Amino acid sequence: MLSLSSRLVEKAVEQFASLPGIGRKTALRFVLHLIRRDKDSVSAFIDAIRHLKESIRECDVCHNIADRERCDICLDPRRDAEVICIVENIQDVISIESTGQYRGVYHVLGGVISPVDGVGPGDIRVESLLRRLDARLAREVIFALGATIEGETTAYYIYKKLPHRDQLVITTLARGISIGNDLEYVDELTLGRSIVNRVRFEP
Amino acid sequence: MLSLSSRLVEKAVEQFASLPGIGRKTALRFVLHLIRRDKDSVSAFIDAIRHLKESIRECDVCHNIADRERCDICLDPRRDAEVICIVENIQDVISIESTGQYRGVYHVLGGVISPVDGVGPGDIRVESLLRRLDARLAREVIFALGATIEGETTAYYIYKKLPHRDQLVITTLARGISIGNDLEYVDELTLGRSIVNRVRFEP
Repeated sequence: MLSLSSRLVEKAVEQFASLPGIGRKTALRFVLHLIRRDKDSVSAFIDAIRHLKESIRECDVCHNIADRERCDICLDPRRDAEVICIVENIQDVISIESTGQYRGVYHVLGGVISPVDGVGPGDIRVESLLRRLDARLAREVIFALGATIEGETTAYYIYKKLPHRDQLVITTLARGISIGNDLEYVDELTLGRSIVNRVRFEP
Repeated sequence: MLSLSSRLVEKAVEQFASLPGIGRKTALRFVLHLIRRDKDSVSAFIDAIRHLKESIRECDVCHNIADRERCDICLDPRRDAEVICIVENIQDVISIESTGQYRGVYHVLGGVISPVDGVGPGDIRVESLLRRLDARLAREVIFALGATIEGETTAYYIYKKLPHRDQLVITTLARGISIGNDLEYVDELTLGRSIVNRVRFEP
């Protein structure tokens, strides 16, 4: 236990220690750092958090985080609105955006079907996805869900609900060996899948 | 680079990433966590930081952090005000307090003499220490400074300035082998010092 001689410091440490993965020692380092910073800089810190909570909302179309009714991705005319990538959460949007390899739009489910955790099909945003697909024809729907039982179950559930027409291609992320990984560290299932789904060698 | 589709999230991530040891990925985890928390809980977070900056001050006596003119340690009547432990900074006070082994008071220098970093004797709180010792007789002054050239130099500089009288004992932290360390990992200087300063074996 760190014993602090100031109630104010104690309170601030408690608050920082409530952030994920932060213990009291690290929280204290943050607090002592903020004490040393000038007033304006701490105000900027506080304002950023306040604005975040006051103004952040969910995109009406894809459920991504947004500053307005629609998120920047849905509003971007350079994005291909006929390709929809289905993801579990906001972090996944950020991860895929960071690859720089995707120019379509997203649909954030807000979870995956998981009976163990009490998450049923009604708890994730499938209805709004189907309404989107009704309102505007899509060329492709991509399942970018985890390679887990929950991810596969969710993809299968949604797949059954999707409108099946020739113009709509339904795809899923490739499963395979992580780049940089030696074969000896790859599990059998992944290795098996990567043999079945092998692709043309293009050196 | 994480590309975020919201300017508000981007700003908040920037702010959290300004904390020591926090990168953009961890900052984003904090931000997404705060977005999910309810408004009251985020307000409590913000208030703790604001109060910290508005109300925290330096103890008039020992320069520790304080909510009032004097810190809780200086105000505590159970602490022995005739034993003064000299430390470099606030973190050191917290570390020593955490041991639960010390019942005296402190004097926070706010640094150590380090010509390389441009810190001279005038930049640390030596004068206020000497005034304290003039105003009230002390039984013991403990140097709890780092076992570094800077720490030793600072201790020596202050030692020369201290009033030398029979009633005042001047001590320094024991140097020795860290508890839990094997001998093979101990550097020669520390090992040498721990032989010279060996203590009675009391099983």
